[in-house]
Amino acid sequence: MKITIKLGGFIFKEKPKPELTKAYAEVLTNLHREGHELAVVTGGGANARNYIHAARSLGANEALCDLLGIYASRLNAHLLIAAIGQAVHPHVPSTVEEMLGCSSSGKIVAMGGLQPAHSTDAVAAIVAEMLAADRFIKVTDTAGIYTKDPHKHPDARKLDEVRVDELLRMMSSASLSAGAYELMDPIAIRIIQRSRIRTWIIPGDDPRNIVRAVKEEKIGTRITF
Amino acid sequence: MKITIKLGGFIFKEKPKPELTKAYAEVLTNLHREGHELAVVTGGGANARNYIHAARSLGANEALCDLLGIYASRLNAHLLIAAIGQAVHPHVPSTVEEMLGCSSSGKIVAMGGLQPAHSTDAVAAIVAEMLAADRFIKVTDTAGIYTKDPHKHPDARKLDEVRVDELLRMMSSASLSAGAYELMDPIAIRIIQRSRIRTWIIPGDDPRNIVRAVKEEKIGTRITF
Amino acid sequence: MKITIKLGGFIFKEKPKPELTKAYAEVLTNLHREGHELAVVTGGGANARNYIHAARSLGANEALCDLLGIYASRLNAHLLIAAIGQAVHPHVPSTVEEMLGCSSSGKIVAMGGLQPAHSTDAVAAIVAEMLAADRFIKVTDTAGIYTKDPHKHPDARKLDEVRVDELLRMMSSASLSAGAYELMDPIAIRIIQRSRIRTWIIPGDDPRNIVRAVKEEKIGTRITF
Amino acid sequence: MKITIKLGGFIFKEKPKPELTKAYAEVLTNLHREGHELAVVTGGGANARNYIHAARSLGANEALCDLLGIYASRLNAHLLIAAIGQAVHPHVPSTVEEMLGCSSSGKIVAMGGLQPAHSTDAVAAIVAEMLAADRFIKVTDTAGIYTKDPHKHPDARKLDEVRVDELLRMMSSASLSAGAYELMDPIAIRIIQRSRIRTWIIPGDDPRNIVRAVKEEKIGTRITF
Amino acid sequence: MKITIKLGGFIFKEKPKPELTKAYAEVLTNLHREGHELAVVTGGGANARNYIHAARSLGANEALCDLLGIYASRLNAHLLIAAIGQAVHPHVPSTVEEMLGCSSSGKIVAMGGLQPAHSTDAVAAIVAEMLAADRFIKVTDTAGIYTKDPHKHPDARKLDEVRVDELLRMMSSASLSAGAYELMDPIAIRIIQRSRIRTWIIPGDDPRNIVRAVKEEKIGTRITF
Amino acid sequence: MKITIKLGGFIFKEKPKPELTKAYAEVLTNLHREGHELAVVTGGGANARNYIHAARSLGANEALCDLLGIYASRLNAHLLIAAIGQAVHPHVPSTVEEMLGCSSSGKIVAMGGLQPAHSTDAVAAIVAEMLAADRFIKVTDTAGIYTKDPHKHPDARKLDEVRVDELLRMMSSASLSAGAYELMDPIAIRIIQRSRIRTWIIPGDDPRNIVRAVKEEKIGTRITF
Repeated sequence: MKITIKLGGFIFKEKPKPELTKAYAEVLTNLHREGHELAVVTGGGANARNYIHAARSLGANEALCDLLGIYASRLNAHLLIAAIGQAVHPHVPSTVEEMLGCSSSGKIVAMGGLQPAHSTDAVAAIVAEMLAADRFIKVTDTAGIYTKDPHKHPDARKLDEVRVDELLRMMSSASLSAGAYELMDPIAIRIIQRSRIRTWIIPGDDPRNIVRAVKEEKIGTRITF
Repeated sequence: MKITIKLGGFIFKEKPKPELTKAYAEVLTNLHREGHELAVVTGGGANARNYIHAARSLGANEALCDLLGIYASRLNAHLLIAAIGQAVHPHVPSTVEEMLGCSSSGKIVAMGGLQPAHSTDAVAAIVAEMLAADRFIKVTDTAGIYTKDPHKHPDARKLDEVRVDELLRMMSSASLSAGAYELMDPIAIRIIQRSRIRTWIIPGDDPRNIVRAVKEEKIGTRITF
Repeated sequence: MKITIKLGGFIFKEKPKPELTKAYAEVLTNLHREGHELAVVTGGGANARNYIHAARSLGANEALCDLLGIYASRLNAHLLIAAIGQAVHPHVPSTVEEMLGCSSSGKIVAMGGLQPAHSTDAVAAIVAEMLAADRFIKVTDTAGIYTKDPHKHPDARKLDEVRVDELLRMMSSASLSAGAYELMDPIAIRIIQRSRIRTWIIPGDDPRNIVRAVKEEKIGTRITF
Repeated sequence: MKITIKLGGFIFKEKPKPELTKAYAEVLTNLHREGHELAVVTGGGANARNYIHAARSLGANEALCDLLGIYASRLNAHLLIAAIGQAVHPHVPSTVEEMLGCSSSGKIVAMGGLQPAHSTDAVAAIVAEMLAADRFIKVTDTAGIYTKDPHKHPDARKLDEVRVDELLRMMSSASLSAGAYELMDPIAIRIIQRSRIRTWIIPGDDPRNIVRAVKEEKIGTRITF
Repeated sequence: MKITIKLGGFIFKEKPKPELTKAYAEVLTNLHREGHELAVVTGGGANARNYIHAARSLGANEALCDLLGIYASRLNAHLLIAAIGQAVHPHVPSTVEEMLGCSSSGKIVAMGGLQPAHSTDAVAAIVAEMLAADRFIKVTDTAGIYTKDPHKHPDARKLDEVRVDELLRMMSSASLSAGAYELMDPIAIRIIQRSRIRTWIIPGDDPRNIVRAVKEEKIGTRITF
Repeated sequence: MKITIKLGGFIFKEKPKPELTKAYAEVLTNLHREGHELAVVTGGGANARNYIHAARSLGANEALCDLLGIYASRLNAHLLIAAIGQAVHPHVPSTVEEMLGCSSSGKIVAMGGLQPAHSTDAVAAIVAEMLAADRFIKVTDTAGIYTKDPHKHPDARKLDEVRVDELLRMMSSASLSAGAYELMDPIAIRIIQRSRIRTWIIPGDDPRNIVRAVKEEKIGTRITF
């Protein structure tokens, strides 16, 4: 099965801790050993936010801030590669063309962002589309998609399923500033919509949730069409 | 002054005709000679649509169709380079990082699209943002932005100015399929909005309209904030 | 068996039509599945001629015109990749070194031109030589090599075989202007000669003619030594 | 004058703070405006150490750990570029050949590490040698080179000058583990020695110390031959 | 004036001697200082022949032998760069596109071969064409073009001028094997012909002969149309 | 088993002779066929020394001299590739990242030097470390490591084993000038030390000595910890 995974940058932390990275590496290696084709896009996390914040304070424009976040996200991809070892392609692609070349080798692909004005969510959706993924799994630091922002509203309710057009409507007010994308960026959702990509948003506390989503067990939030 | 220009692919036609390309090359060369810093993004036009259409019929996914459109748009950038000669950088950048390198040489930069899910409009907006452009000028095959689609509604009225949030509202229903972006793609508009880029949408029948927009003469539609 | 194929640009048309491309993609995929190693060089066709013509009108030198034709030929290679899918390497090489890298992966290689003053015929011959191809098959829009230009002389007779030195003699008057190479460019023939590459020139109306040439059935014109 | 500067990673901190980066950017921009040719190599600092530590815990070999440190150091170079703006080349070179290309443009070059088993000190020394620098200035978080490790020995005395062979003797016990180079790595010193590069080790608390070293005012420690 | 120069590999010898290289570097630097735009293509010489000979003995195909000759020719270009210093672009381009980028910087361009089946003569002609050179000067180890091979025929007479079509006729029997091109390769001559490039073949014993050809003084053999 | 081999440049000679190269190619091909993973770093040999000497005479700095030696060493890697054929990756990597990509394909990797101030010994040690090689075999033109320089001291005695710290002590006086590294460069030894790489220094007169070292038969000098 072709599986594209977005690993939220929160996994890597400001001061990256090896335990969680290792656990994810094991889950990915197992899936690959079972014959699945894997591509993984890592978010930038705290380091990306730190560098973006510093750059913005230094007067950098938003596109350049985006680039700094992209480079930070690639650092996390390199760390994931260090954790996986032989089963992953050693190169972190910086264009979808390079991604296709790496994927064509049969190894796991690990990558970060690509170009400004595309969040790593959007990149992951493009990768899922380009590889005709059977599963697109976004690993987040929440239980899935909520009716409201769960960090602010205690009465927010986690959705088991959400229709893509409904999701788009929910997102319509999201801002485009680097680092501020909430839940999932609208470009990602439009790509999921246009290519009807089978998508799950799952909680990242347990790496085996990825396996649950692959098996279509009930986990996180599933996007329907 | 720093000027970023989006040249609609319609200028290059399916079977590219040299006259209009030449006229644009002259306007651009003159602006460069006067000391302006120029970056030009060319659309894919009819050739892009033809190749995208063929690829889609062959079962290619939308991201790959986007790539074919991007490659076609770069062909137009190469033709523009052939028309301009010495004043333009000979390389067509395929990332914003390469674009920065070319621009850093002081020559005109000519380029097409970059990565899937970014129209050449979005690319041009990113370039304008990255270069901190004083003018972002989109050259279209209409007189500017209309209240409705002028091809379908005879009572459509051209707007001299439009607020960016109003424009975003008008665009909100635009689809993300390759080749189907109308007027200006929402990502481009969000970038214009987040960085308050001074933007004009002008008619492409007369290349000197670019000079009019540079001088802030009344031409096409101006985006306000 | 190692097979290098030159697909005439005529297959892709000015407005590329998917049917013929699809039929060729199927023949190539089948040959690859049977264990043959394939490299395919696509010509530029009508689009290449259109862009070359426009560039020349704009005052571009012949080397730059060649480059435009090369870029157009690569667009056709990308379309062929979209048609073939998994069995082809996703990258279109722009040097023979890159071609070797792609070929080394065991996938079909699809590519266009390389550098000015080499027609795609010459490129295909170089590729055939570099890969030590057992068959070099040039797919044309004629029945093979004729005693005279069949478009001008109704009494032209198709040859079943032609000795390479005889062919060189016939070609000796060919001009080097971009797009004007007739039948096969002399550089290609000299390469065929120096490495004694087993070569067929076959009609492109039926993609299965490639299989016939692979099996050494009587088809088109065979070059002998 | 040709000046090569090594900026210790300590300037960029784990959570990069813009103030010091900005102050350094101003000093560098001024020196460039006065006509000096500048190349700056940034260390990896706390982020490099964090990623190296995580990678080592994940079982990565030392060469791969070095690579993670190199990528982290390049992130700091990108931040410095964001701070400098127009006067710096936008590309962070990843080989000395690319460095030569960037330097050849007349802009400031900003870069991080290059390849495993070369600290950023060694990289800076190679850059200084390759550019035939008139000054090689290493900016540290100490006052210069001490008779002993000043963090451990309160009676350590700062040296105003030190002969390169004496320095080499002091260094001879330094280990090669990533992140563990003390004072200056022996490879750097051997390069300084073989090409007799005029070198200063200066305290980084005040960015203007760079100007003092350029003017050969008494600051930090000077390496003599 | 735009000048493209082919420096025969004989200048660099099997064991390169610095004196002649230095003398050429000075002539080139002076011409550049006077405002001329220079591109120089170096031949492979004895080293190229040695490696080609070894590779052929090892069973390498002719295209791969060509590549080894190309790499050897680039080594000579690097040595020329070492001799020229600041006035030359530090990068040795491996495609005409890269050559255009280097040339666009205003520095001297030094390069070797490009792709198989193009001698460095052909490469130099392509470069002359691409840059619209006012002079194309081929520096050889003979006094110019002779009526016969001067190494074999004592009655061979040096020509002051030769018409390009006459030259082509003389060349028509030249073989395409790597290292075996005599006088000038036919592809080079066809390019000279199609773009009417003003060409001189001059003796390489005195580097100042280049200056004589630039001034159109009587030296070597001039190609006429 | 993972095996990294350093082939001394002496194998390739100033005028490369095919016999020894062929014999080495056969040994390498056999080892690869038996399932071993191979990476081979070739030295620059006489050609490297010749070009370095010429460049130094021309006033080039040591870092640039190093680069010329690196390019010469890559020429030898290309010749080795020509000798091996199908079993080797056709690309000569110029960074460790590219080396990882080539190695990841399962083919033999052949490469020369990387960056200035790293001898090809150091490069080979880095490659051995990066690939976690089970054997690092350095092929030399001596019988192994001697108690003294055997070219100067007739009473020098070959060591069967030497402890890495003892070796480092012996090396401590080695100079860093390009081409002057004796026995093994200290950077290489420190890498061997920090990663405890199982290392043999063996005589290059018989290519089958590599097989002997792989089998841990008594040959040359073994480095112990």
